[in-house]
Amino acid sequence: MADLDTLPAFLETLDTEVRDAADWGEVAGYIPELARIDPAQFAISVVLADGRLMRAGQYAQRFSIQSISKVFSLACVLARFGESIWHRVGREPSGDRFDSILLLEQEHGRPRNPFINAGALVTTDELLAGRAPKEALSEIIDFIRTSAGDSDIHFDAEVAASETETGHRNRALAHYLLSFDNLRNPPELVLGTYFHQCAIEMTTDQLALAGRGIAGLADAPLKLSEVKRRRIAALMLTCGHYDGSGDFAFRTGLPGKSGVGGGILLAVPGRASVAIWSPGLNAWGNSRVGTEAAERLARFTGWSVFG
Amino acid sequence: MADLDTLPAFLETLDTEVRDAADWGEVAGYIPELARIDPAQFAISVVLADGRLMRAGQYAQRFSIQSISKVFSLACVLARFGESIWHRVGREPSGDRFDSILLLEQEHGRPRNPFINAGALVTTDELLAGRAPKEALSEIIDFIRTSAGDSDIHFDAEVAASETETGHRNRALAHYLLSFDNLRNPPELVLGTYFHQCAIEMTTDQLALAGRGIAGLADAPLKLSEVKRRRIAALMLTCGHYDGSGDFAFRTGLPGKSGVGGGILLAVPGRASVAIWSPGLNAWGNSRVGTEAAERLARFTGWSVFG
Amino acid sequence: MADLDTLPAFLETLDTEVRDAADWGEVAGYIPELARIDPAQFAISVVLADGRLMRAGQYAQRFSIQSISKVFSLACVLARFGESIWHRVGREPSGDRFDSILLLEQEHGRPRNPFINAGALVTTDELLAGRAPKEALSEIIDFIRTSAGDSDIHFDAEVAASETETGHRNRALAHYLLSFDNLRNPPELVLGTYFHQCAIEMTTDQLALAGRGIAGLADAPLKLSEVKRRRIAALMLTCGHYDGSGDFAFRTGLPGKSGVGGGILLAVPGRASVAIWSPGLNAWGNSRVGTEAAERLARFTGWSVFG
Amino acid sequence: MADLDTLPAFLETLDTEVRDAADWGEVAGYIPELARIDPAQFAISVVLADGRLMRAGQYAQRFSIQSISKVFSLACVLARFGESIWHRVGREPSGDRFDSILLLEQEHGRPRNPFINAGALVTTDELLAGRAPKEALSEIIDFIRTSAGDSDIHFDAEVAASETETGHRNRALAHYLLSFDNLRNPPELVLGTYFHQCAIEMTTDQLALAGRGIAGLADAPLKLSEVKRRRIAALMLTCGHYDGSGDFAFRTGLPGKSGVGGGILLAVPGRASVAIWSPGLNAWGNSRVGTEAAERLARFTGWSVFG
Repeated sequence: MADLDTLPAFLETLDTEVRDAADWGEVAGYIPELARIDPAQFAISVVLADGRLMRAGQYAQRFSIQSISKVFSLACVLARFGESIWHRVGREPSGDRFDSILLLEQEHGRPRNPFINAGALVTTDELLAGRAPKEALSEIIDFIRTSAGDSDIHFDAEVAASETETGHRNRALAHYLLSFDNLRNPPELVLGTYFHQCAIEMTTDQLALAGRGIAGLADAPLKLSEVKRRRIAALMLTCGHYDGSGDFAFRTGLPGKSGVGGGILLAVPGRASVAIWSPGLNAWGNSRVGTEAAERLARFTGWSVFG
Repeated sequence: MADLDTLPAFLETLDTEVRDAADWGEVAGYIPELARIDPAQFAISVVLADGRLMRAGQYAQRFSIQSISKVFSLACVLARFGESIWHRVGREPSGDRFDSILLLEQEHGRPRNPFINAGALVTTDELLAGRAPKEALSEIIDFIRTSAGDSDIHFDAEVAASETETGHRNRALAHYLLSFDNLRNPPELVLGTYFHQCAIEMTTDQLALAGRGIAGLADAPLKLSEVKRRRIAALMLTCGHYDGSGDFAFRTGLPGKSGVGGGILLAVPGRASVAIWSPGLNAWGNSRVGTEAAERLARFTGWSVFG
Repeated sequence: MADLDTLPAFLETLDTEVRDAADWGEVAGYIPELARIDPAQFAISVVLADGRLMRAGQYAQRFSIQSISKVFSLACVLARFGESIWHRVGREPSGDRFDSILLLEQEHGRPRNPFINAGALVTTDELLAGRAPKEALSEIIDFIRTSAGDSDIHFDAEVAASETETGHRNRALAHYLLSFDNLRNPPELVLGTYFHQCAIEMTTDQLALAGRGIAGLADAPLKLSEVKRRRIAALMLTCGHYDGSGDFAFRTGLPGKSGVGGGILLAVPGRASVAIWSPGLNAWGNSRVGTEAAERLARFTGWSVFG
Repeated sequence: MADLDTLPAFLETLDTEVRDAADWGEVAGYIPELARIDPAQFAISVVLADGRLMRAGQYAQRFSIQSISKVFSLACVLARFGESIWHRVGREPSGDRFDSILLLEQEHGRPRNPFINAGALVTTDELLAGRAPKEALSEIIDFIRTSAGDSDIHFDAEVAASETETGHRNRALAHYLLSFDNLRNPPELVLGTYFHQCAIEMTTDQLALAGRGIAGLADAPLKLSEVKRRRIAALMLTCGHYDGSGDFAFRTGLPGKSGVGGGILLAVPGRASVAIWSPGLNAWGNSRVGTEAAERLARFTGWSVFG
């Protein structure tokens, strides 16, 4: 284990070194608003168990959390409805792309896990539960704001509009789920809620603070039960990076969840909550430089759930 | 965390209660020697970090470790050749059955991970490295004997012969790998080695002791480097129970590896090495009662890699 | 070759015998309006090259032609735009269910052929070409009316409404095609047109008469060029019965197109146009008794494109 | 219909024009003996119903018939055992590569049709029926020699040896079939027979003559019943060009069977038997220039089963 007093210096060095990255990866092209972002950006924020916040790079820059929101919507669903969601969605890695419709056909409309798009649509549908999208969205953003202890967290209306206009594959997934009776609210309401939850924007500081509950840190404003926390962490480790989840677990030993906006949330159980951001993506749709930074952070700190 | 002094009593209760299991599952039918075994059997052995060995049930009964041997052969390959194996096999959960040939076609002969059969054949092929099967097999069994501190561990020749005769699907996998130039030794030598390593028989006591190195216990006779240990544990957690890996991680929070002989090896990093055995299998090919016992043990002890 | 003067008697016998069918199959359950139909019905109409019309059973009963409309919409597209459609859709049997979305993912949004649902949506989209659905629908129904020489052919508004309400999988396919830029008109317009074309209802008499052009009969009011006619027949033979196309070709030797309404259109090039109807379906979604009747007709007449 | 007296001149022109082909395609790389062949070769032989033999190009050059042998082995099986083969193999186009193992897994070891490799192995296995490979091979080659009226047709021992040594994927298929109990003779015997039947070499003259029975020409020395002939033709049309079968049917309107040696056998029912050869292949593994020549021949002659 590294001396955590040296962590700020390590983060500064990390920030300097990753900026020499020959290859930042490419930003997500399929969401017009995200396609315009400069990939050559980086930020990292670490909240330790003792409450210290350390960071480097563009930690004040807001970015679209996208699929990282799936962790929070799942937490909301588990809090509100308990374990009933597992009748509608599985807990297995998918072995396929995040937006794959293929397995959904083979498995008769039951998505493999809540972190691929189809599974997240079911989670959002469960949370919606006949309410107006506004109410479910309030619940999600309130959960995040309270977790972060920061009310200055918002939806980016333009990103949400951009996805609403171009999210054809998600729309296909929603209708497909409906064809298997695995969607209860009207597709457009579920999609509208989903596109907005994905369009929440946060800084790495805010995201790291919001992750304290999932990491099980003592001073988290919103605590999750041990069982829920462990289960969410297990899902993050096995399914949090789509078809690159196994590799991420192999390289970092840490539960993480990525988003196509380039963010990664890492839960270091009992020790730290970490947010990393770099918008260029690798072949699996995960932040390229962010993944590298996570691996180097894990190596430096010795953090790994595997002891 | 439970008081571990109460663990022996818990294991006794567990043994009593699982024996009331209405459904023991079914023994593996495709290996004739295993098909004859009575499914209504159970054993559990736990080695703690302080060296104490606790157990219940039929802990002196030898059983065929089958796919659990993949953990040991991988450890041998990593010890002998370092990380070169990853050029030939991936680190992702497969989302398919243990003996699936389907993904192998889609991914041009590179198995998803070293714990599905195709990946284990590649691992064994790497270990063989032009040597006679006897030499590679000596290396694996010596590794296990030394790890367990027990030289009374052997191959079951009849199980090996049984698989040699009926292992048509593994034979298909080997030739298929060869067609993609991902097998270097003659298929029959690789298969012979593989069938023998799977036919090693051990008691839960022996297996729990042999797992100490992978669990990172201080008194393990054979220690693995921290990096290797963590990586093997990550693979166990994400891929150790075939297409039921995600569910196992969700329910136990522990790295584990199952075999169709009904065994499960659990690594509780820094705390314990656990072996469970019950030969009846669930739909994914993992021990049915064993999985349940693992979940109850995790709940009782509070052990989980997720803090 | 049978003496065709005996055909009327054969058809009467056929009608009598198939009504003893122990198993009529099941009507399509996923379209509510069709789910109510009694499966124990049968009709057959044959138009010969010399103009004679022979028939048996409930030949005056209108039924929903469903996917048989895909032959007519394809003919319309080929007539209006020539061969450009082949840039957007293939000509291969699919090896999958009629509404499969799986292959569409593997082949990046280019449907295998114009007779599976995804391919038919592309065909309809091509025909729509920016026009109002009404105009494209007029074109299709005018084509059918003129071909049949009968203006009393209409859409069944209730079936169309029924599918509009419940056609979630087709809606998913449309959005999925759009995500690959293989849909040019708004999904709802394409789907509306598609659901209406499928809801055309005809008697077997009308359908057999409408098929004269595709069968290349001399007295067809609407003639297709030889090239077009042959190509449509080739597609019917290889792809006209979904995943049962090979078996249908093997058993009858004739190009045919089925619909889930229980209809089958057979083109016997230069010799006859045949329509069969029996609403109960087999496992592939083709008329069960209709398929049997087609096979017996082919055997009796000696008709087969294979000489 | 063209005047067939002009056919010889057409064939000469065809031969001249295809030799200007910018792209001959690539010879099959996976069979060493075939990999050495110059792709820039072409031959065509046509036997008409009246017995006339017309040809152009290198019609005296022997080539490896490879998968075209599947037509003859199927004819032998049907002749000897009737329709029992259909319990073991289907009659549907596969939608996958000729050597795909994927569908075999999804369909539990029953190959889609007798013209993909897995299905041909089952056909050969059925024909073998416990006999020595030599006997089954005698039966196949005698069938071909008698059909062609030419005893100077032989196996190319070097090609057979080459495939025996490198046919790993076929070996995988055989063992895979065995794992589903869909192989009755020892894999090595089936494979040995199969590799030899594929290694038969013929000129286009010989192949066209041998195809007379399948084309149903009056002067065929070996006649098939009408039912058998039609069924084989139906299979050729729907499955004869692997995953390019639909396209071939669309372009030529004729039943055909290709081989990776670059040969194509066309059956024009009642009219002609055609053999084409050009060893360079297209993306589907069918002769590139040969396919083009078949299409131009069909256009010139007006031959099409679709009237």
